Formats: sequence, C-alpha cells, structure tokens
Amino acid sequence: MSMPAFAGQALAPGAVLGIIGGGQLARMIALAAADLGIRCHIFAPETENPAFDVAAARTVAAYEDEAALARFADAVDVVTYEFENVPAATAAFLSQRKPLHPGARALAVTQDRLSEKSFVAELGLEVAPFRAVDSLGDLEAAVAALGRPSVLKTRRLGYDGKGQVRILAGTDLAEAYAAIGRQPAVLEGFVTFAREVSVVAARGTDGTFAAFDLCENEHRDHILAFTRVPAQVSAPTEAAAIEAARQIAAALGYVGVFAVELFVVGEGASERVVVNEIAPRVHNSGHWTSEGAQTSQFHQHVRAVCGFPLGSAARRGRVEMENLIGDAALRWRDLLAEPGAHLHLYGKHSARPGRKMGHVTRVWPERS
Amino acid sequence: MSMPAFAGQALAPGAVLGIIGGGQLARMIALAAADLGIRCHIFAPETENPAFDVAAARTVAAYEDEAALARFADAVDVVTYEFENVPAATAAFLSQRKPLHPGARALAVTQDRLSEKSFVAELGLEVAPFRAVDSLGDLEAAVAALGRPSVLKTRRLGYDGKGQVRILAGTDLAEAYAAIGRQPAVLEGFVTFAREVSVVAARGTDGTFAAFDLCENEHRDHILAFTRVPAQVSAPTEAAAIEAARQIAAALGYVGVFAVELFVVGEGASERVVVNEIAPRVHNSGHWTSEGAQTSQFHQHVRAVCGFPLGSAARRGRVEMENLIGDAALRWRDLLAEPGAHLHLYGKHSARPGRKMGHVTRVWPERS
Repeated sequence: MSMPAFAGQALAPGAVLGIIGGGQLARMIALAAADLGIRCHIFAPETENPAFDVAAARTVAAYEDEAALARFADAVDVVTYEFENVPAATAAFLSQRKPLHPGARALAVTQDRLSEKSFVAELGLEVAPFRAVDSLGDLEAAVAALGRPSVLKTRRLGYDGKGQVRILAGTDLAEAYAAIGRQPAVLEGFVTFAREVSVVAARGTDGTFAAFDLCENEHRDHILAFTRVPAQVSAPTEAAAIEAARQIAAALGYVGVFAVELFVVGEGASERVVVNEIAPRVHNSGHWTSEGAQTSQFHQHVRAVCGFPLGSAARRGRVEMENLIGDAALRWRDLLAEPGAHLHLYGKHSARPGRKMGHVTRVWPERS
Repeated sequence: MSMPAFAGQALAPGAVLGIIGGGQLARMIALAAADLGIRCHIFAPETENPAFDVAAARTVAAYEDEAALARFADAVDVVTYEFENVPAATAAFLSQRKPLHPGARALAVTQDRLSEKSFVAELGLEVAPFRAVDSLGDLEAAVAALGRPSVLKTRRLGYDGKGQVRILAGTDLAEAYAAIGRQPAVLEGFVTFAREVSVVAARGTDGTFAAFDLCENEHRDHILAFTRVPAQVSAPTEAAAIEAARQIAAALGYVGVFAVELFVVGEGASERVVVNEIAPRVHNSGHWTSEGAQTSQFHQHVRAVCGFPLGSAARRGRVEMENLIGDAALRWRDLLAEPGAHLHLYGKHSARPGRKMGHVTRVWPERS
C-alpha cells in the first residue's frame, strides 16, 4: 500500500507478520492481522494446520532448520509466536535478523517454572511457596518444607496439566519423581483458592499498557472450559491483579499480548491474588474479547507487535466464553442457531478427546 | 472435522466454499468463513488480489476457462461470488456441477437493468419510470416521455456511476447515446429523493429471511462514502423497504445476502420508497454490520450459502461506516488511535484515486 511508517519501530499496513506456530492462536492472530491490512507468514513443522488456511504464506520446516528460518526472516518484517515453548536457539536466531515480539527475555523467563516464579517473587508479588527439585533428595526436603498436598511440576514444557503430579498424603515420592521423568522440577505448595482468574493485557513498543477486564476461569480436567467476565472479585482485588500484570510486563520489557493466571485467596477484606503462571502470548482466557471487548486480544497483539497504537480494551457487556473440546464441537449447528452465540471453529480435521476444536462467546447487556 | 451435515443441502464445518472473484468482498467472506471452520477457494483471473492472502486455496484463471472451472468445481462443496457480473456461461457451467448460491436466476435478473426494473415493477414495487433504449430513436421517444433531467444507463456492466450519462436541458441526445457506446440501454426518469437507503438482508436455503436495519447512504462522486444506521425515516417506510427486499428475495428464490438500494421520496405521511437497484451479493452498504450487528453480513452470507441457520441481524447501537477511498487510507494510524473506531484494510498494494482501500466502523450506544 506504500504507506509511510510513523516511527522508527512502527510498521505500516502491507507489512508481513511472521508467526511461529500454526495452531488456532496463530490462526486467530492472522485473521485479525488481515483486518489491519497486515499479511501473515506462518512458520510451522506440520504440513497441515489451522493457520495455513488463512495466511498469505507458509514455511513448513523444523524449528531448528536455520536455512528455512533465515529465508523466513528475510520474508517478514516482524516475528511473533503463538506458544511459549519456541526453542531458545530459534528465538535467538530470528531476533538477530528481525524484531521479535515478545522478546527473548519474556521467553527465557516463562519457559522455566523456576525462573518464572523467582522473577515474580522478586517483583514483590505473591506466588505459591515453591522449592527447586533436582533430585529425589530435593523432593523429600521440599515436601518436608511445604507439606502435603503439594504439586510437583517439571520446570519446562508443561501445559494443560501435563508434566505435573500431585503429592498427596499417600504418594510415594520416588514414584512421583519417576512419573515426571526425573526432570528438573519445582514443588509448589498447595494454595486453597476461591477462584481462578486471569489478566489478559497488552504492552506496546512505547510502553503503553492496556488490560482487559479481569476474567474468571473454570477448568475441567486441567483444561480451560469456561471464562466469564466480569470476575466475581472486589474492585481492589481486580486492581491488584491488573497492577501485577502491569509490573510483570514492564519488568520484562514486554511487547504484545500476554496473560497472567492468578488464584484468588481469602474472602472479604482479606481477599487477594496469588500469581500462578505467565503466558507470553495471546491466551485462551482472552478469547472472550473477540465479541466481548472493543478490541480483541488478537487485534491488540497485532497492534502491539507492529508498533501501532493499542486499541480500547473496554468491555461490551457480561461475557462468557465456552471452549469446545473434542466432541463438543459436534454441537455446531445448535450453537449456530442459538441467538447471540458467536461460534468460532478452528478448522481442525479430527475431534480427538481433549482437543480444543473451537469456542463460543456470548455477550449480554451489563446488569444495571 | 468429520462433522455430520444436518439436512440434504446443508454442509458442515470443514466444507470448502468456492468464491468467484478475489476482491475485498471475497476477502471478507473468506475471513468470516474461517470463523465457522469453512475453508475458502478463490477463483479469479488476477495473480494478486485481496482475497488470496486469507484463503486456503486459489485458482488463477479466466472466467471462461472451462478446464479450470471444472477443477475448481471438483475442489469445492458450494460456490458463491462477490460480484454480479459473473459471466452467465460461467455461472451455468458451475451450477451444473455444484450448488451455486445465489443462483442463476438472481444473476440473470440483476445483470441487466431492464430485466431488473421490469422484475421489480412486476412485483408491484415502485421503481423510477423507465424506457428501454435500443436506438437513438428510442432515446428520443423516451426523453419525450420521461422528460429532462433523466439518466441514460447501459443495461449491463454499470457500477459506481460508470456506464451512465445524465440527460439535462441542453444535452445532445446523439452525443449522450454515443457516450455510453450505443449499447442497449435504459432511460430512467429523474427521481427527486430526500435520502438514499438500502436494505441488506439474507435468505436461507429454507426460505428464512433476516434483514439488517435499514441504513442510509451518502455517495460522493457516485461512490459510497458513508453509511449510517438507523436511517432517518419513519417506521412504516423502513418496514416497507424491508418488505420490498423480502418480496424480491422470495420471487428470485434467493439464497445468500443481498442489498436493495432505494430512494426515499416524499415527506411525512407521503414518505415512501422507490427501488433503485438490487445487488445479489454482500454489499458495501452492509459493511457496518461487522461491528454494528450481532452477525456480520459476511458471516450471514456464509451461513446462508452453506445451508446453516441464519444469525441474528440485531443492531448493536448507532453505527457509522466510512469508506476509505484512495489516499484516505493514509489516515490509518489516526484511525487506529481513534477510540472506538474499527479499521478494516483490504491489503491492496496501491492507493489509486477512487479505489476502495478499506473502511472504518464506529458504534455508539443507542440514544435513549
């Protein structure tokens, strides 16, 4: 479109956004990018995936294929990713060639549970008590310190409940340690929480920060099932959660959309939040924003990583997001017929159990 | 996705929608289709166009290339189009192989101004007075009957003011007839109108009908500049416009989204609508629905042509759509920074004067 870019870092419509990963998050980023005249180039190892169907270009190659990465970097103006487990070497390789948003520090901190928890604790934010576990001896000492129940989690590559095991009253510690593959791990003390909430927010290249309203999450079998907004917490608790997200993003020099998952503990005046996890990417608990906010998390992410002004994060009403997992997507026709329901399907070919196939949002007028 | 289709005609997510034409309307249909898990295959003669960037598959070939059309038909489950000037032979060829929505009758009627006006008049709906013009003698007789000012329009291939010439007090009729290339034409009597409005509506494979609220259009240099909703007309006038659209769709056995452009004439109790033009496709005056209605015209079109239930056409507030024509798209950064403005760019590479580059929607709460 030959449009002049505004500032040094900012791109203009017509630019090419490179996305690492080709799942539904990449697909929804690409759909939002198209609205803003941004072309997308997907880099992923699979020959078929949800994002390829809606992107202008694709590279099918391993994340370790430096020749393919170099061609990809040449073909794009900025690089982002849809998942936090981008190999560090891949991120480093790309960031030497093109702007990578979010940056390498955000990846390094959030790829490792121990560094993530240490980072959050050093900001003065509350996290569940934790101990590093590098041996069975460490695990025994950690359980002695934090008690049972507690949760043993691998430091790397855990998601949706994978790579973790609960330490209950009768759990054999050697078996538990074997169950996670005797990998470097973290033991987390059990937190008795009333609610699980998350902040989905964005930080721009100029440091501006915009948070969507705090949302409340309901998990089933360790997988997000529902998100509801507003969260049923006090205004000070919501403010504290959003302030925690702001501090985390600032400390990481973050650019893009991210999510902070938190536990709400205590009641009434003692209600407060405990940081559980940071996701350096658009997040399932932000899917409600597509119809529920002035700017969707996907549009916001594209704005942020392209150096555009952030959009309004204002909410449009009471909102519910329901994940369609496995066979739940077979309800598509009923959902299309449901007044006010907005169906989003990811174009996946087979509905395996536990697989996220799509989601639905519902928006109602605010209670007055 | 291996999802069972519901009825004989209905498709299921995972189906492939073939779209004839690759401009911004095809692009926005493809983006909406992706939300519903529908893959799109674009057929267009250009090697680059706005829709290719967001579609799963493309065929670059002439509309007369029957071998390419046959392969395209084999690859898709249903065919639609983004413009009403699809050659009749192309439409006939495809409709023998796959369902074509909207169908051949809608194309035949709307591709020819004379047949369109005759069709509308035969439904008992008011149109501007008109006469067929096949010779200079016809034109002289028609001007004698309908007076000056009047407008001479080619029967085929006119859009955005092209293919028409005004017959004013001093206009030489031979020159006017030469100016439109001495083609088969229609002379239309001049209608003194207060407003230009349009109904954008959908009809499903089962005959269900859903109209968006009547919108008011402001043209500049014969090109749509703004659409505003609600239109400033009386409730009976809006109802009459929507009833006209319903009758037109039913008489055509129409499936998909379409627009009826109308003039509002008279005032107060004598206010009424005169049908100007039918567009058998999603329409620029329906772009406000993306953020301004529960279901966008693009989602609605995909639902209709796939045999899915129609979505709610309810409006979300007062809405304005502003077209970004030519250099107006250079305002992209200001528009991104404008609270509540939703920018849509079409990914076109050069901003020629008069070229539609994108649009903006703005939604405000209903006045109470």
